[in-house]
Amino acid sequence: MINFKAISIKINYLAKNIKNNQFKTVQVMITGKSYIGGAWKIGKGKEFSAQNPVTGENVNVFKEVDQQQIEEAVSGANSAFEILKTKDMESRAQLLDSIAEELEALGPQLIEICDKETGLGEARITGERGRTCGQLRAFATLIRKGDWQQARIDTAIPDREPLPKADIRRILRPLGTIAVFSASNFPLAFSTLGGDTASAIAAGNSVVVKAHPSHPGTSELCTQALEKAIAKNNFPPEMFAMLQGASPEVSQVLVQHPQIHAVGFTGSTAVGRILYNLGASRPNPIPVFAEMGSTNPLVVLPNAIAQRGNDIAQGLAGSITLGTGQFCTKPGLILLLKDEHSPNFVKDLTKAIDSINIGHFLNKRIKTSFKDSIEKTKAVEGITMKDGKDESGKIFEIDAGQFLQSPRLEEEIFGPAAIIISCEDIDQLIEVIAGFGGHLTGTIHSDEDIELAKVISAMERKVGRIILNGFPTGVEVCPSMHHGGPYPSSTFEATTSVGTAAIERFCTVKCYQNIPQEHLPLALRNKNPNNILRMVNGTFTTDDI
Amino acid sequence: MINFKAISIKINYLAKNIKNNQFKTVQVMITGKSYIGGAWKIGKGKEFSAQNPVTGENVNVFKEVDQQQIEEAVSGANSAFEILKTKDMESRAQLLDSIAEELEALGPQLIEICDKETGLGEARITGERGRTCGQLRAFATLIRKGDWQQARIDTAIPDREPLPKADIRRILRPLGTIAVFSASNFPLAFSTLGGDTASAIAAGNSVVVKAHPSHPGTSELCTQALEKAIAKNNFPPEMFAMLQGASPEVSQVLVQHPQIHAVGFTGSTAVGRILYNLGASRPNPIPVFAEMGSTNPLVVLPNAIAQRGNDIAQGLAGSITLGTGQFCTKPGLILLLKDEHSPNFVKDLTKAIDSINIGHFLNKRIKTSFKDSIEKTKAVEGITMKDGKDESGKIFEIDAGQFLQSPRLEEEIFGPAAIIISCEDIDQLIEVIAGFGGHLTGTIHSDEDIELAKVISAMERKVGRIILNGFPTGVEVCPSMHHGGPYPSSTFEATTSVGTAAIERFCTVKCYQNIPQEHLPLALRNKNPNNILRMVNGTFTTDDI
Repeated sequence: MINFKAISIKINYLAKNIKNNQFKTVQVMITGKSYIGGAWKIGKGKEFSAQNPVTGENVNVFKEVDQQQIEEAVSGANSAFEILKTKDMESRAQLLDSIAEELEALGPQLIEICDKETGLGEARITGERGRTCGQLRAFATLIRKGDWQQARIDTAIPDREPLPKADIRRILRPLGTIAVFSASNFPLAFSTLGGDTASAIAAGNSVVVKAHPSHPGTSELCTQALEKAIAKNNFPPEMFAMLQGASPEVSQVLVQHPQIHAVGFTGSTAVGRILYNLGASRPNPIPVFAEMGSTNPLVVLPNAIAQRGNDIAQGLAGSITLGTGQFCTKPGLILLLKDEHSPNFVKDLTKAIDSINIGHFLNKRIKTSFKDSIEKTKAVEGITMKDGKDESGKIFEIDAGQFLQSPRLEEEIFGPAAIIISCEDIDQLIEVIAGFGGHLTGTIHSDEDIELAKVISAMERKVGRIILNGFPTGVEVCPSMHHGGPYPSSTFEATTSVGTAAIERFCTVKCYQNIPQEHLPLALRNKNPNNILRMVNGTFTTDDI
Repeated sequence: MINFKAISIKINYLAKNIKNNQFKTVQVMITGKSYIGGAWKIGKGKEFSAQNPVTGENVNVFKEVDQQQIEEAVSGANSAFEILKTKDMESRAQLLDSIAEELEALGPQLIEICDKETGLGEARITGERGRTCGQLRAFATLIRKGDWQQARIDTAIPDREPLPKADIRRILRPLGTIAVFSASNFPLAFSTLGGDTASAIAAGNSVVVKAHPSHPGTSELCTQALEKAIAKNNFPPEMFAMLQGASPEVSQVLVQHPQIHAVGFTGSTAVGRILYNLGASRPNPIPVFAEMGSTNPLVVLPNAIAQRGNDIAQGLAGSITLGTGQFCTKPGLILLLKDEHSPNFVKDLTKAIDSINIGHFLNKRIKTSFKDSIEKTKAVEGITMKDGKDESGKIFEIDAGQFLQSPRLEEEIFGPAAIIISCEDIDQLIEVIAGFGGHLTGTIHSDEDIELAKVISAMERKVGRIILNGFPTGVEVCPSMHHGGPYPSSTFEATTSVGTAAIERFCTVKCYQNIPQEHLPLALRNKNPNNILRMVNGTFTTDDI
């Protein structure tokens, strides 16, 4: 498993030693095409380019797909699903391992083109490639093990009175064709071959990716890797499609296609909600699993400030500015109780933020949007912006009473900024939390503070993951991770887009009554050669029947 | 566990021996009130009555709640949720057991009032009460065992390089306040204290029930039972509310209330979709788990017809007419291959249907709607209605080619009717199945017919439960049951409304990072005194940590 926090901190270190765009140039062939029905095709829609966020230059030219090409991609993927159903779990696991290998085999050309498109730098991109391959392999391991299928068997009781009891068996099964929308801020780990694609393929689905227009060349290279893995493993090439496009219409047509069975999305609340609405308003509604905006409240309780205020300030500054603040779990609301130590903490945090170079925004749109958000926030009544360098992150401060009257302040500012909310007492702090919408994470710093239980209880209803004495950036990819939260941080709070439980989003349930062994999915047959954990007549066991 | 098929067949037997409305009269006090904020209150809206479907007489008078009373009910339930969070699993299990006891303690008065409102007869209602109590106790057993919480623990690795790994733990948690909409066709098992309420309470939620206007007195009595159980177990009375009402506005206001966190519904596709849309279009969308219409295709393959056609016809006639055909799993589409034996099968089925007295419809609306559906179906081009007695079920026959041009025929006819679709060959039969929307069940009768694998494969994509050589009515309440299916049979096909897995609908997921033992949910603490199955560092175990 790859720890992203670790990678990011390593990157911060390396970033001081290397300058962007100094790699040796490798010959990279970017065609600008989409991958449709198992073949590379030039889009029939309008032209667009990605921009190098460091130099502002255009990077290659791409052509958007048209409606007919989307239709072709989805219907190809849907037909391929019938073939996928015939593949056993080991073949599927080998495919995932193979995708990871081919992704690694792309070598420096992937790093180069991805850096040109995102400005994230070699170290970060290399680390993210490691995470992406780690995710693919983690899902391979998961499906080899088989427990994830939640197999349940209730055996027949032929002589039960007054009527025999039938043999009933239930298991998770793939849904069909999944549409995946790539995120701008993780061009590998939440993109073409990222977590959504990996989990959807692991579950046995076919996938249609809408590539992010911020890194279309990266998406093309990743798709080339996947194409090779599919060929090597004799899977149907139509099972995966990658569509280039920059217009909202492409997304709309894709989500509304009758043969799309679920959607995975990572991005803004505004766009996520549009896609969710499209999914819900179809003649046959489908779930749009959108992981959206989150401002990740962080509480620092009095003892924690008194005892290690400066350490917390340093760590928090790092978390706010990590990856130019462009992380879903960036802490954006800092709640304090006003006391003798809190002014020093604010000073320490402001100073720490000021000492960090924030790096590059992923694209012009995000940079502009960040500037706009800062201007709007400055204009809120009662708020003060701490002075600092132009090229630094931004810290605001506002009294809790005033914050409660400015609900817009809870919205995510995507970038390196945070708002300190100064509370008169613990009741007001709890009132602020109780007024929150949903967030992915909630963090509390406490050194045996008596208020801890109260704050945990209030926070629990508002967030998906509660962290004590740590920082929310650093989303461990592991079985117990939950990367989801109450709306608007995600559309289905019981589902996660990080960690092995993510596979459940792209599964349905099927139940078999009196079906003969040879027609049952392998994990439901009497013999259990792989020792899958199954619930048999109400009790968990790995035994044969 | 109670087998409903068993009960129903017992009822059919008893129904020949008893006549409705011949019980000794018991003094039943029905007040017409709703249960709001832990107190009985007369609705401030308009008056309505339930009707005795046998005699047509009005049964008691009820008053609909108004918007302010809905607000009171939901906010009371939502406040009570904070108290519910402090209750341990054993207390919750005792509450469920206690509700079952109090339901039984209502004795003959519940049977009498329920029969007056539904005309279902003593035997069926007694059986259904048994199933309802069985469900409540099954959820008590489930939560005592604790495995259902899907606890996952990844322990810390403090010396991991380059950064320590945090302690991360994940578990299912209650959602908040659940709105439950009662079904007309199961006045106990899918109503006030039915499966949705039982699973929502088992998961730790508070519940607001919208009583079905077809059996409001039954709902009042059930709520009285629950009130006693809550008092005996020292739970907050506001945790449950029962709202009387016959207008769509009551449902609308309830689903749109910001403090409702999920909805359980059983009923028609039309109403289910309206509620789903209301849930999806809220400022903060919520899932509406609607179990809706289904026509439950049933295929009889040639060998099966040749070898036991008459037996299948007899069983099928029973399944079509069971409970006057008012079951979600009634088989409504019968697919045959035209051959030398198929005409005899059609005759046998028609004759068998004709010999069964269909009993009473649940209410006037359903009766009228059934008659309308029959008239509309008769008018479809190419369809023939088999002659039969006025008081019998209805059998139609149509060629597959014609069926494919009449998509409306796939819609559920709620009542004792079925359409035979005669197919030229197996390819056409598969084509018909491939054209289906979603259904709860799909049944195949086969005696080593070579077409079986093909039919199973086609059916699997269209239904939630596949049955071989049986009948879909008879939904076993057990861990492996799945009562859900692709849209329009339900809104979230991966969820079930029958069986213990139903509890998952009303749960969310919470994740705890570095949280001290005393602040963790019990099932996530190191000590595991109840031997709950947990995934610890990727491996399932019941051990302590």
